[in-house]
Amino acid sequence: MKNLTVVKVGGGVLENEESSSQFLKAFAALEGNKLLVHGGGRLADQYLLKLGLKPNMVNGRRVTDKDTLEVVTMVYGGLVNKQLVANLQSRKVNAIGLTGADGNLIVSVKRPSDDGVDWGFVGDPIEVNADTLNDLVGQGTVPVIAPLTHDGKGTLLNTNADTMATVVSVALARHYEVTLIFAFDKAGVLTDVDDDNSVVEKIDEAGFAEMKASGQIHSGMIPKLESAFEALNEGIRKIRIVGFANISNEKAGTTLQLEK
Amino acid sequence: MKNLTVVKVGGGVLENEESSSQFLKAFAALEGNKLLVHGGGRLADQYLLKLGLKPNMVNGRRVTDKDTLEVVTMVYGGLVNKQLVANLQSRKVNAIGLTGADGNLIVSVKRPSDDGVDWGFVGDPIEVNADTLNDLVGQGTVPVIAPLTHDGKGTLLNTNADTMATVVSVALARHYEVTLIFAFDKAGVLTDVDDDNSVVEKIDEAGFAEMKASGQIHSGMIPKLESAFEALNEGIRKIRIVGFANISNEKAGTTLQLEK
Repeated sequence: MKNLTVVKVGGGVLENEESSSQFLKAFAALEGNKLLVHGGGRLADQYLLKLGLKPNMVNGRRVTDKDTLEVVTMVYGGLVNKQLVANLQSRKVNAIGLTGADGNLIVSVKRPSDDGVDWGFVGDPIEVNADTLNDLVGQGTVPVIAPLTHDGKGTLLNTNADTMATVVSVALARHYEVTLIFAFDKAGVLTDVDDDNSVVEKIDEAGFAEMKASGQIHSGMIPKLESAFEALNEGIRKIRIVGFANISNEKAGTTLQLEK
Repeated sequence: MKNLTVVKVGGGVLENEESSSQFLKAFAALEGNKLLVHGGGRLADQYLLKLGLKPNMVNGRRVTDKDTLEVVTMVYGGLVNKQLVANLQSRKVNAIGLTGADGNLIVSVKRPSDDGVDWGFVGDPIEVNADTLNDLVGQGTVPVIAPLTHDGKGTLLNTNADTMATVVSVALARHYEVTLIFAFDKAGVLTDVDDDNSVVEKIDEAGFAEMKASGQIHSGMIPKLESAFEALNEGIRKIRIVGFANISNEKAGTTLQLEK
């Protein structure tokens, strides 16, 4: 099987011109088949405020009413996605921007309000149709995916970019040896969050359990690593957590593995 | 050669829920390979005003400064494009949304200010790379194209949707027998602009010259028809100008032909 690198990058890296440019240079330098999944959260906040709307976050996730859905559709699917595509094209990367609605890539269900929060137009993926994506990668294009999906009934849904990167990677693992890279503003998983030299080179599931128990891994990282280990169990060959400027350096960052 | 229908629809049809729905129903009913190019002008005006910016039109074309470019990128490439894709998916049309930057589809040059107007980030197409588009159509997907292109150096450009529909049709005419349909809020080319029963069934170049000389065709239609006849001369098999709800009715509207 051929290799495919799936990279997830957050909105935080992209909203700053310098870090965005460093990241895109590194992404363009990655050899072989590749695919980018991006966030865009903070830029959406800026536009919400400019439009007189109030960003509403619960546990780090965005409550998405109808007006907010319009804004995230514009910002994620339009502004961020198309600027990334144009930038990558200028670097001779044949990028093509998509959401989960395009080619029916990801169908989601509207998140239930079981937990007492009415999330509005937030979607959790239930179905991935990777055929079009697989064709695009096979033709040498580089898909750039915005964090939006659809419900199959005509409604777009705001969807977590980490989740999208994971489900897309798992779906493509039938066709490729997939490496999934989470590009961060930290150098990797750190034992000391303020020290970029404290990168943990490798973590397996047992090591993760220990670090979680000892409180060495901080809260935001826990669900990310949990879903990453799930993905490893579902056929992704390798998962790395790396500083955004070092993604093409095989030795940088933290590599997740199932066993020691 | 197989057939391909390229449909251009303006923002005016799309901004109204009822006409948009009628149009999309008719588009979904079109048989065979198809492709949609959309505008979105008036919705961009609404967002410009909400953001405290001033729409600036000269001779019916939008002067596009940096802030306006961000808004049209969001509205055309994000909101309008992705809502169309999600709607078409719900009608079992496997739509995939694109701009001219995606797959390097259309490279434009920034329009010069020879005419004394500084158009800003407005682009005129100079190069069409239809390979990715041709692959997508061949795979049974239905491209939905927003009126944005890029300069190949990382900058998006606001581009006329009629022009984009025409250059894309001409490029695909090497692979398909292309019918280009301009979907309007009028029933076709009318001899009396207030009477939808006055549709001219067929126009050839000589007839067009006569109607222009007699003043029977009104101003906005003239450049549209001129570029349409150019496209016919460049290999598009048929061009029709039709009411938006009747595009799948072969007999509706006006058909352009080179000779009687």
